[in-house]
Amino acid sequence: MEFLRNTWYCAGWGADLGQDDLIDRTILKESVLLYRKQNGLAVAIGNRCPHRFAPLSSGCKKGDNVACPYHGLTFGPSGECVLNPHGDGTTPKAARVTRYPLVERYDALWIWMGDPELADADEIPDFSESSLREGWGHIRGHLEVPVHYELLTDNLLDLSHVPYLHPFLSAQGPQPDGFREERELKQDGNTVWSMHRNLNTVTTPLFRLLWEDAPEVIEGYFDMRWTAPSNLLLRAGISAMDGRREDGARIPMAHLLTPATETHTHYFWCQARNRKGADRAIDQELKAGIDHVFRDEDEAMLIKCQALMGTTDLMSLRPVLLHGDAPAMRARRILAAQIDAEAKLGT
Amino acid sequence: MEFLRNTWYCAGWGADLGQDDLIDRTILKESVLLYRKQNGLAVAIGNRCPHRFAPLSSGCKKGDNVACPYHGLTFGPSGECVLNPHGDGTTPKAARVTRYPLVERYDALWIWMGDPELADADEIPDFSESSLREGWGHIRGHLEVPVHYELLTDNLLDLSHVPYLHPFLSAQGPQPDGFREERELKQDGNTVWSMHRNLNTVTTPLFRLLWEDAPEVIEGYFDMRWTAPSNLLLRAGISAMDGRREDGARIPMAHLLTPATETHTHYFWCQARNRKGADRAIDQELKAGIDHVFRDEDEAMLIKCQALMGTTDLMSLRPVLLHGDAPAMRARRILAAQIDAEAKLGT
Amino acid sequence: MEFLRNTWYCAGWGADLGQDDLIDRTILKESVLLYRKQNGLAVAIGNRCPHRFAPLSSGCKKGDNVACPYHGLTFGPSGECVLNPHGDGTTPKAARVTRYPLVERYDALWIWMGDPELADADEIPDFSESSLREGWGHIRGHLEVPVHYELLTDNLLDLSHVPYLHPFLSAQGPQPDGFREERELKQDGNTVWSMHRNLNTVTTPLFRLLWEDAPEVIEGYFDMRWTAPSNLLLRAGISAMDGRREDGARIPMAHLLTPATETHTHYFWCQARNRKGADRAIDQELKAGIDHVFRDEDEAMLIKCQALMGTTDLMSLRPVLLHGDAPAMRARRILAAQIDAEAKLGT
Ligand code: FES
Ligand code: FES
Ligand code: FES
Repeated sequence: MEFLRNTWYCAGWGADLGQDDLIDRTILKESVLLYRKQNGLAVAIGNRCPHRFAPLSSGCKKGDNVACPYHGLTFGPSGECVLNPHGDGTTPKAARVTRYPLVERYDALWIWMGDPELADADEIPDFSESSLREGWGHIRGHLEVPVHYELLTDNLLDLSHVPYLHPFLSAQGPQPDGFREERELKQDGNTVWSMHRNLNTVTTPLFRLLWEDAPEVIEGYFDMRWTAPSNLLLRAGISAMDGRREDGARIPMAHLLTPATETHTHYFWCQARNRKGADRAIDQELKAGIDHVFRDEDEAMLIKCQALMGTTDLMSLRPVLLHGDAPAMRARRILAAQIDAEAKLGT
Repeated sequence: MEFLRNTWYCAGWGADLGQDDLIDRTILKESVLLYRKQNGLAVAIGNRCPHRFAPLSSGCKKGDNVACPYHGLTFGPSGECVLNPHGDGTTPKAARVTRYPLVERYDALWIWMGDPELADADEIPDFSESSLREGWGHIRGHLEVPVHYELLTDNLLDLSHVPYLHPFLSAQGPQPDGFREERELKQDGNTVWSMHRNLNTVTTPLFRLLWEDAPEVIEGYFDMRWTAPSNLLLRAGISAMDGRREDGARIPMAHLLTPATETHTHYFWCQARNRKGADRAIDQELKAGIDHVFRDEDEAMLIKCQALMGTTDLMSLRPVLLHGDAPAMRARRILAAQIDAEAKLGT
Repeated sequence: MEFLRNTWYCAGWGADLGQDDLIDRTILKESVLLYRKQNGLAVAIGNRCPHRFAPLSSGCKKGDNVACPYHGLTFGPSGECVLNPHGDGTTPKAARVTRYPLVERYDALWIWMGDPELADADEIPDFSESSLREGWGHIRGHLEVPVHYELLTDNLLDLSHVPYLHPFLSAQGPQPDGFREERELKQDGNTVWSMHRNLNTVTTPLFRLLWEDAPEVIEGYFDMRWTAPSNLLLRAGISAMDGRREDGARIPMAHLLTPATETHTHYFWCQARNRKGADRAIDQELKAGIDHVFRDEDEAMLIKCQALMGTTDLMSLRPVLLHGDAPAMRARRILAAQIDAEAKLGT
């Protein structure tokens, strides 16, 4: 199973890459070095020295360049060797590492693992909704999950698992009269929306925390947007049944999934909120809650599923399809077609 | 190397499966769920939900059925999906898991991993000798051993290793005049007996514990019965040279070996005894002794052998054959022929 | 990738094999048993019993022989079975283990993994310089390094890595006027010399320890000799610029690399010294220093390189070649040709 290469993946949160850091991150099975130039601009180059394959991330920053820890070959942000301290100092032609286009946007570092000529920053999906903004709260995290990334996509696009796997995220007690669920699958080009709306439902403890005087009976919405290969935006919130969303409580989230390998995935998430943005105690509480739900419930379950699957290729097992699978199947088909098209392009 | 499928394996001790338990056990590389119906009857079905492959063992018992922990599909003792909580609630045809015939007998749960049509409980080998009975003592255990199951069969059918590997199980000091060993290999259909008799030998400390006033000079017998695929009964005890076995000390044992995978084996054992049956301190002492002998001596040695073999297929290494190997070789040949016959039946 | 077999490898230091020891050591993926006969002569035979593949190293020495721990087959120094305690006691023809020619010389046990007929002790390379001698100090050690052995050869033959990886082994502060480096590659038959000389350089702290009143400005030399497959002698020391080497400080070292598997290497090292030979505190200090440099700097780096290589075959990755690589490339070519010639011989 190949990965889509001519696309943007999240390589990390910008705030996690300090001015003096050399961070190595495995993306699509390649070891990538992330660092910042002296002017603060983040760059990404191959982490594997072409001489004896030492990791540049264990070396030293020298201005805008990085010196290999083993014999000191020094590479610049373009991936070219800029210094050979040995012999007559000429740099062998082959002494270069890959340069990966990198763009910092919506708090994240977006990396392009394919042909650099094709990299177009305008194709980075819009995550302005979930990014840092004046007056809103914001928390974020990074997990390494030992499962195939599409199992995480499936999980996020089919929220029908919430009542089973996440009891505390669900409404406690019976639903009021007039309660109604609406589910909708929308496709807009290659963007898939998995929309969930609960009408005349009760406020859950999570939202009560943010909006203490929320009405008893409200509308809840959880609209998940998928774009290839595996970047998801969750538009989530509650509002008064006859109210506007912007007057309610809103917690837009980004779920950015980046394959490290076929069996390991970087999971970068962030969550903004329009209420109690300055409350650090709520930051803590929400972050602890999200870590619990991801780590102890979703990840724990997906690890078990992956183990029982015994393969990373879900479709080869001919899974039974349920009603809630439609959005994830749509996303899988779009991605498979794109990977297929890319493979043909390559030949 | 294939496993024999149309046969009975021990899936566990009945007493270890409580009324509220959901136990998953890997047998012949399949993940099996064991539980009891409301009427107490033990059943076995596939543990892997056909939707997204979550383990039903992490789910919830609902009466006679089990609900999947991930999205709530619910399966009955026949393996069929009895509830789909999503969409219009129809259950997809393919939504079923395997049903495995299961019979509780001789304290054990016997599972049939092959064609259910062929399952015949009369073929379960007779372990009444080693099972719980009025007035006798009884202890039992369950080990997971990281070696191929036939290495364990070999070990049990060739007790010539006892003086080398288990010094404390052997006679201490010199044998009395008239000491004589008798070894016999018997085959009765597909049943193999490996008989060991020591005549005019001394009572070992183990038997002295059970029979304090045993005569100094006795007959010891260790008759191991093998039936395919890997269920063994050890008829062991001592008696006065001119006495009857039922007047001596008897410790019949079952050794039930069930392959989890090619490299891991469930080892279920139990031991009855006709003397001091109500003595709980002796229960403890015997159990500790058996654990020591299995874990620290047999298992430790077999793990080293398996590592040096570098394969799970002993015969491909063309082992040197010694006198004591005859029963194990007989058993290996019978089992290989049965596996072979089954493979032909399948094609 | 095959190993060279008709050659001498170091199996261990003689002093580490006591009179009562049974040591198992994996060499070229074979499990070898090392022990001493009653007359003290060290021998090597296959460690894997041909009956059920138990490790003889877990058995018992019986005079010049070794009894298997599982069923007691007993093997002599020639590898032949000398005792079968079972049945009528005849020893099956196939009951033998490999005999490996073994010679104890230069404090080391040299083993021949190929055709015993071809073993010629005169081909053991001369390590008298680095071995125990009257009036000199001597320390030695044994590391197990989880990388392919040729990565260690490369490391030792290209000392240009020292200033980058081993800052404390390098000159502190600026070099004096007249400082000059000389590098030379010499090949003498199948022996490769990688010579490093630093003229008009300063005494490093390491040598100051041995030679307190060394001149400020000295000549340092580090001449590494390689012989196939991977046994290296380092002639290292400092002397006055106009002085004789024997009047300076000398620390000849042996680096004997023996492949355990493709991914694991035994690294046997020893270091002699002509000054302060009786000083046990200096023994400790030097040994701690060497352990630190090997473990925390060389090994740590090579493990990272091996992981990033994702293969044990360096050349298949087409590494960039730098000036300092010439000796290691020469050695790799000689070894590859010898392995190739041996393969042809075998067919
Ligand atoms: S490995 Fe990077 S310079 Fe040698
Ligand atoms: S995985 Fe079992 S219901 Fe979805
Ligand atoms: S394994 Fe060595 S004698 Fe049986």
